[in-house]
Amino acid sequence: MRMYDIIERKRDGHELSCEEIAFAVSGYVAGDIPDYQISALLMAIFLQGMTDAETTALTLAMMNSGDVVDLSELPGASLDKHSTGGVGDKTSLAIVPMLMAMTQGRAFVAKMSGRGLGHTGGTLDKLESIPGFRIGLSHDEFMQTLRKHGGAIVGQTGSLVPADKLIYALRDVTATVNSIPLIASSIMSKKLAAGATSIVLDVKVGSGAFMKTVPEAINLARTMVAIGTAMGRQVKALITNMNRPLGTAIGNALEIAEVVEVLHGQGPDDLRHEAIMLCRELMALAKLEDAEQAELHAQQVLDDGSAFDAFCTLCAAQGGDTSVLHNTALLPQATCCANVYAPLDGYLGSLDTERIGIASLVMGAGRATKDDAIDYAAGIRLLKHPGDAVHKGNVIAELYASSKEKLSAGEAELARTISIVDTQPAPEPLLYAMVDTDGVHLEPAAEPALNNSIPATH
Amino acid sequence: MRMYDIIERKRDGHELSCEEIAFAVSGYVAGDIPDYQISALLMAIFLQGMTDAETTALTLAMMNSGDVVDLSELPGASLDKHSTGGVGDKTSLAIVPMLMAMTQGRAFVAKMSGRGLGHTGGTLDKLESIPGFRIGLSHDEFMQTLRKHGGAIVGQTGSLVPADKLIYALRDVTATVNSIPLIASSIMSKKLAAGATSIVLDVKVGSGAFMKTVPEAINLARTMVAIGTAMGRQVKALITNMNRPLGTAIGNALEIAEVVEVLHGQGPDDLRHEAIMLCRELMALAKLEDAEQAELHAQQVLDDGSAFDAFCTLCAAQGGDTSVLHNTALLPQATCCANVYAPLDGYLGSLDTERIGIASLVMGAGRATKDDAIDYAAGIRLLKHPGDAVHKGNVIAELYASSKEKLSAGEAELARTISIVDTQPAPEPLLYAMVDTDGVHLEPAAEPALNNSIPATH
Repeated sequence: MRMYDIIERKRDGHELSCEEIAFAVSGYVAGDIPDYQISALLMAIFLQGMTDAETTALTLAMMNSGDVVDLSELPGASLDKHSTGGVGDKTSLAIVPMLMAMTQGRAFVAKMSGRGLGHTGGTLDKLESIPGFRIGLSHDEFMQTLRKHGGAIVGQTGSLVPADKLIYALRDVTATVNSIPLIASSIMSKKLAAGATSIVLDVKVGSGAFMKTVPEAINLARTMVAIGTAMGRQVKALITNMNRPLGTAIGNALEIAEVVEVLHGQGPDDLRHEAIMLCRELMALAKLEDAEQAELHAQQVLDDGSAFDAFCTLCAAQGGDTSVLHNTALLPQATCCANVYAPLDGYLGSLDTERIGIASLVMGAGRATKDDAIDYAAGIRLLKHPGDAVHKGNVIAELYASSKEKLSAGEAELARTISIVDTQPAPEPLLYAMVDTDGVHLEPAAEPALNNSIPATH
Repeated sequence: MRMYDIIERKRDGHELSCEEIAFAVSGYVAGDIPDYQISALLMAIFLQGMTDAETTALTLAMMNSGDVVDLSELPGASLDKHSTGGVGDKTSLAIVPMLMAMTQGRAFVAKMSGRGLGHTGGTLDKLESIPGFRIGLSHDEFMQTLRKHGGAIVGQTGSLVPADKLIYALRDVTATVNSIPLIASSIMSKKLAAGATSIVLDVKVGSGAFMKTVPEAINLARTMVAIGTAMGRQVKALITNMNRPLGTAIGNALEIAEVVEVLHGQGPDDLRHEAIMLCRELMALAKLEDAEQAELHAQQVLDDGSAFDAFCTLCAAQGGDTSVLHNTALLPQATCCANVYAPLDGYLGSLDTERIGIASLVMGAGRATKDDAIDYAAGIRLLKHPGDAVHKGNVIAELYASSKEKLSAGEAELARTISIVDTQPAPEPLLYAMVDTDGVHLEPAAEPALNNSIPATH
């Protein structure tokens, strides 16, 4: 088998075999195939696409490039959730303790999370704003915590899917990131290697997400469900709105505080509702409860404080100082703050949500380069969402940073996207569609978002 | 300017600017842009194509990556010819002395030739079968020879178009060789850097050529004419038949002997006719003679021996032993030979001409790897062409090599393509079309070859 022939076949639009795909991936990881041949193949994949069978083979080859976590020794169903990334998306932090409280030994959530990427925040960075929290548990610690408490949130170990790290780095510099088969295989290889049997995917769509249109998001969701199903897992995807930040808080400690609110049965409606939805779908997918029962149960663990208790348990088990959860004023606090006020009466217009993520980043909440330090206290509280009525002088957003310069940089970014309009923008749904092995289930309220045709399912 | 954005724009089918193309080429040659970004760009170019303006900009950027030969100090028109490569194509060796004899100080041919590539032979290798012949003249020797004799054939110096060497090496391993804009810019950057003002391109098409269909060849020709014209040169392309070797001889010394025959007014009709055609077009293009006059003149210099004399002059000026031209039996001779006989009566069927080139190569006439030595005596004389009537026992081909093993290897290759058929294959024209700035001029006899539509000209 020659790499040249594999590139040529994909270039000409042919379907690659499992063996060809495995040859390319394993050869690249072993250092036998050079960067320049893989980048030519990636561009050919970008432009010619891949069938579901090819994408599944690519996922499998990437998964097999490193360790695969074996969770079968643990009792109960293994649940996992993945979000494709958005601004203010702290649902993992809410649903892991919710599921711990709901399942009570019937299942566990072995969550491997990531750091911030581009304009989106990272679950690991958010957790590290809790003093002492350790995201780097040893394998034994991880398994022990899962066995004892039913949940843990850790970083991905270096030996998991090394092919993804190599290929992602190459995609990032060769304009081949935004390809459905490449995104789907990258996400699913990590999810599958992490060992869960029931997986709910939260595919974000809109101005703050990597997927900009609903049909595109559905296509990605459909591909990932097909891969997971082919690999014998239960997989379902939710297509959710990222035309505005999720909840109010953007920034690490600010988001932890907001999660605590939600776990106390309070907090922003959209965040609460999305967390309940994700728990409902995971419980139903793993056949632990039917959907209706699971939805009520999820509301209950929020309202009776048991999800908050589970979060404290998780936090303590991973070395975190739980006093900051009991009193969020003890979380890192910014030394400088400023408000953005409405300059006139009207409605908050639609947002470039990515810009809001960047505003938070430039104020210190994220990394501009890989080695930057994070200011856990920095960020934004966006008190109004698109469509909300505002009066002149209302506070639209609170900004937090460590210096006036950083505040100014954040204000400048926000000024480019916050607008007051005369006519109330049409409300947008939180959920556009769900995708499972039966196909695409559109939410009736999502129709206006479907400017483009929906790709066929099979 | 960022290389990432350039890749992304070409990926998305946009037209790159001159500045973007120059940035990529000069950055690559300087070592600032890595292989893997250029290979991604090459694949994007392969799949998305390039406009004539982009291809011209690429040609210019490549040309400017190294030295550009200045021939303006020499008196008279500067003529050049380029063949895209075929089997048995020795026309350069015939037309340089023909033009020397025809122009007599009114013009000169500063020919930079190449070595064998793949299944095709190389003019430099053929010349080196003449004992003492030096293809590596210094700049001063080259200019002196041109000034004195009106012609020289040398290798391309290392400082000419270094970008092409780098990019070609990368295309060769990333399945991006066979792209019209990349082929056209590679050829034209070298032709333009070599300094000629009137250039005739011989675009070969058929089973022994890199272009397999007439429309594809016309498209390449049209692109190269557009580039040359945009750069202020006189350029015309001939689309010629490579569904059979040109002439009878394939192999270095064998081809020198056949050129000598043609220069004596003898030799195979197709070779003689094509050499005359090329001289006619070059003379007309440079406005030295009108086409009719030039055709008669070309015949005359063959028939009166003055072209042969010019070849001896060129050979002597470059250190070659002219006694082998006066007596070609003194050229390197093979120690082993064998014949391929017709096994029955009929007609020689159509050929996979590339296979014949490979047969010659495996017998020692070419290089399997860059560092192989060439056996100048090895090769094939193909005495019958497709459509020729043969009787059982007729010699179809003579094979020459240095060992029985090599003869057997050549015989095995030939056996895969030589066939005797009952029905005489339809005759094929030598010339399919000519392409100049006015557009495509189809030869009436070429109609059957146009299975596909002819690309529009402008």
